[in-house]
Amino acid sequence: MAKAPILTPQADDFPRWYQDLIGKAELADNGPVRGTMVIRPYGYSLWERMQSEVDARIKDAGAQNAYFPMFIPENYLTREAEHVEGFSPELAVVTHGGGKQLEEPVVVRPTSETIINEYISKWVQSYRDLPLLINQWANVVRWELRPRVFLRTTEFLWQEGHTAHVSYDDARAYASRIHRQVYGDFMRNVLAIDVLLGRKTARERFAGAINTLTLEGMMGDGKALQMGTSHELGQNFAKAFDIQYLADSGEREYAWQTSWGVSTRMVGGLIMSHGDDNGLRIPPRLAPVQAVVMAIKGDDAVLAAVRDLGDRLKAAGIRAVVDDKTDTPFGRRAVDWELKGVPVRLEIGPRDLEGGTAMLARRIAGGKSPVTLDSAVDTVAAVLAEDQDLLLRQSAERRIARTVDVASIDEAVEAATTGWARMPWADLGPAGEAKLAEQGVSVRCL
Amino acid sequence: MAKAPILTPQADDFPRWYQDLIGKAELADNGPVRGTMVIRPYGYSLWERMQSEVDARIKDAGAQNAYFPMFIPENYLTREAEHVEGFSPELAVVTHGGGKQLEEPVVVRPTSETIINEYISKWVQSYRDLPLLINQWANVVRWELRPRVFLRTTEFLWQEGHTAHVSYDDARAYASRIHRQVYGDFMRNVLAIDVLLGRKTARERFAGAINTLTLEGMMGDGKALQMGTSHELGQNFAKAFDIQYLADSGEREYAWQTSWGVSTRMVGGLIMSHGDDNGLRIPPRLAPVQAVVMAIKGDDAVLAAVRDLGDRLKAAGIRAVVDDKTDTPFGRRAVDWELKGVPVRLEIGPRDLEGGTAMLARRIAGGKSPVTLDSAVDTVAAVLAEDQDLLLRQSAERRIARTVDVASIDEAVEAATTGWARMPWADLGPAGEAKLAEQGVSVRCL
Ligand SMILES: [Zn+2]
Ligand SMILES: [Zn+2]
Repeated sequence: MAKAPILTPQADDFPRWYQDLIGKAELADNGPVRGTMVIRPYGYSLWERMQSEVDARIKDAGAQNAYFPMFIPENYLTREAEHVEGFSPELAVVTHGGGKQLEEPVVVRPTSETIINEYISKWVQSYRDLPLLINQWANVVRWELRPRVFLRTTEFLWQEGHTAHVSYDDARAYASRIHRQVYGDFMRNVLAIDVLLGRKTARERFAGAINTLTLEGMMGDGKALQMGTSHELGQNFAKAFDIQYLADSGEREYAWQTSWGVSTRMVGGLIMSHGDDNGLRIPPRLAPVQAVVMAIKGDDAVLAAVRDLGDRLKAAGIRAVVDDKTDTPFGRRAVDWELKGVPVRLEIGPRDLEGGTAMLARRIAGGKSPVTLDSAVDTVAAVLAEDQDLLLRQSAERRIARTVDVASIDEAVEAATTGWARMPWADLGPAGEAKLAEQGVSVRCL
Repeated sequence: MAKAPILTPQADDFPRWYQDLIGKAELADNGPVRGTMVIRPYGYSLWERMQSEVDARIKDAGAQNAYFPMFIPENYLTREAEHVEGFSPELAVVTHGGGKQLEEPVVVRPTSETIINEYISKWVQSYRDLPLLINQWANVVRWELRPRVFLRTTEFLWQEGHTAHVSYDDARAYASRIHRQVYGDFMRNVLAIDVLLGRKTARERFAGAINTLTLEGMMGDGKALQMGTSHELGQNFAKAFDIQYLADSGEREYAWQTSWGVSTRMVGGLIMSHGDDNGLRIPPRLAPVQAVVMAIKGDDAVLAAVRDLGDRLKAAGIRAVVDDKTDTPFGRRAVDWELKGVPVRLEIGPRDLEGGTAMLARRIAGGKSPVTLDSAVDTVAAVLAEDQDLLLRQSAERRIARTVDVASIDEAVEAATTGWARMPWADLGPAGEAKLAEQGVSVRCL
């Protein structure tokens, strides 16, 4: 049955497909101020699930949540030279407050290294206060000239971790722990994205860091998306904000620091990793709705069966909802659930009920087949586990298939049109990187 | 044993006691920009627990979370006349973004009625789209000339609900449901504050509302704190933002709306309701740490017993931590836990261990008595339940004892110096309210 496509096909225009999907699946809207976005309830429910999974891992890594003001005195930003240089073209500045011009303008945080380190310097006295491990969930602002919803927006939501340690080795180990055990684990095992873990070149590093660890995901168009970063800050901010501690030895030493973050950009990465021409495909472990039980028609027996199955799924710990809105045509509702990427649909009509079955439709693996109502809960649980694995496998297969070993800059530029190129950094170096940049190709990950 | 007081006694200077406690219990610091605050990890853990309890109740009431930009075009605020008048002296204005002066300045949200209603007007077409029930957790900014940490800060954290309904009755019922079942239930049964539920006078109403429901708590000094509000907005914003729906009848009608919020001010209310001269007293159902198991000395048997009891408490679902930092003097650690208001301390030293007991100290009811290690888990569970009830009872007793029926404005002013005055609105009226206001007394609740 040929249907008119609901979305621009990916193969025709991937960025257009992305925009279409964000609108049709009711994930987000553009905000009224250029570059801002409205995250609609379904889009926000994806972010909430991401938050809760990442937050649990951050707490396991020993960090505590806190909250710092979003208004930062301008002079804080100028204390660390590279940092201010990196951010000044992106700042939003408040010049009026309470009906008056402010004596000193304040900046809306583009990130909170400066203000958090001002306080860390007050709180840290001795080596016993270290490590100090702080995390914050917050909105930040970086004025965006080429905005794209979820990927680059003037205001976005994120978490930012900021830590202080007694030694270079401790700081380095913690940045790496966050990189692997928090972000890497979450992205592979919940988002089902086979991210590549590595580090950035000096050119691509965070402003003020001595080393930036990155997680790069390959999207459906073969392009890379930076899904998160974890930075070693060395003693740069400790010196700028005077974070010194009394060491075991009795000497005063500067602390060693890290910072790390993931943002609502991950929602964009999720869409572009797993989406297809029919909409989203949400990995079961993330999905706010794992299974929807649909009434095909509104007769009493069908509605009762649908609600009963919904209750049994919930009782088994499956995030299930019931769709009994039978005044909307069934086909339209089915297309909507497909757009939203709900992993499993169970459809029940009068004929299914006669046979004691439901039709089970799998959004991730594809295909439809009947299941008995008695066995439906067990089947759904098995399908969800299977399809979580399948998505990760598909992500890995794409990354492998579309990564080419190359030997020259020309070959790398060519490979970047359809996927990733891999070449030895020794052969490329900063000079080669600069040449690639002229062609619009960046070195993502060492 | 007479100790030098750690905090200014409440009876000497209640506001000073409050500031002392916020510093000593490591709840918050002043931010660098006037009126802003840094919420430290322990203070934030109280807010996180409040968020999770309130969020669950909001979801039970059918609302969905979303996120709207904090930057609002200035012209949005001017569309509803009373609303802009209410907020303009408090606004923070961004005039520069991305290194340039902006063509139209943008305001940092003081509340989101305007921007959310702009989108609700796009999303609502027919009566089938109603009720539309949206909630947002966010930071907001209202420039504060007399800031006090948690109570009045230039930036604060809150949730704001915004809903649209087909009729006045539906909107009114929903505002009331939030008032009672979400806020009232949370404040009484989790915060253990015996809040008074009522509505505001026209003078005290939210800018743009036709009715404001309030929850007023009596603090330790007998003063009232507004703990939350739920507003009926009538059709004011629907007309300003053109929120119309196609009714069942085929006619286009303006929607009826509500908005409602609670904020980090609740942390201030919690402190001032239950705190005493030794620090906080956190109700067990809220407490991030319900029980701390303390090693008095660092010998191996003690440490093993402390950890074992900690594990058994956690296994029983009690939020327990172990304090084995025996290089800090025991007395200092005990005072710290007392300041932080942890409901139960279990102290174990070599002598306790010989007798197979721990010393159980109750922060809320007061007193210390030994418990056998075998029975400790059950005893702690019982104490936590008892002390939750006790705190609510103490809150109710204070409210009743300090509320006086009065017959005149003079008597009301007199009563307000030590508590609350109650008098018939028919006898007072707007004219009497204006006279009270001249004496610095406000009508809190009808
Ligand atoms: Zn630097
Ligand atoms: Zn009005």
